[in-house]
Amino acid sequence: MSTTSTYRVTGMTCGHCVAAVTEELFGLPGVQGVDVDLASGRVEVVSAEPLDDDAVMVAVQEAGYEVMA
Amino acid sequence: MSTTSTYRVTGMTCGHCVAAVTEELFGLPGVQGVDVDLASGRVEVVSAEPLDDDAVMVAVQEAGYEVMA
Repeated sequence: MSTTSTYRVTGMTCGHCVAAVTEELFGLPGVQGVDVDLASGRVEVVSAEPLDDDAVMVAVQEAGYEVMA
Repeated sequence: MSTTSTYRVTGMTCGHCVAAVTEELFGLPGVQGVDVDLASGRVEVVSAEPLDDDAVMVAVQEAGYEVMA
């Protein structure tokens, strides 16, 4: 079983940004998949267990971007 | 002695893009310094000898961007 969580991330402008966010999110425990749509900023994260939204926010900030509330 | 060559590169949107272009240009023989201004796309390359503009164009394309004619 898995959980899909969706976020909106601002500030990504190119494929490098997508890669940076993806890499950080894969560093979170239990994350199995990450899908980022650059145009909309929509980020879907598939995980074994429900994600800690604060941890997601911090990971996105580590990459240099922000999760919209 | 060194030569400074200036180019205009289009398509860079963020610091990752700047890093990608900088890295490719440092891969050219004789390049000693690279300075990129993201806002304007202005790229200055300092080299031991005058650069081959075609080689610069190819390096920028390798990074995923274009040199304006």
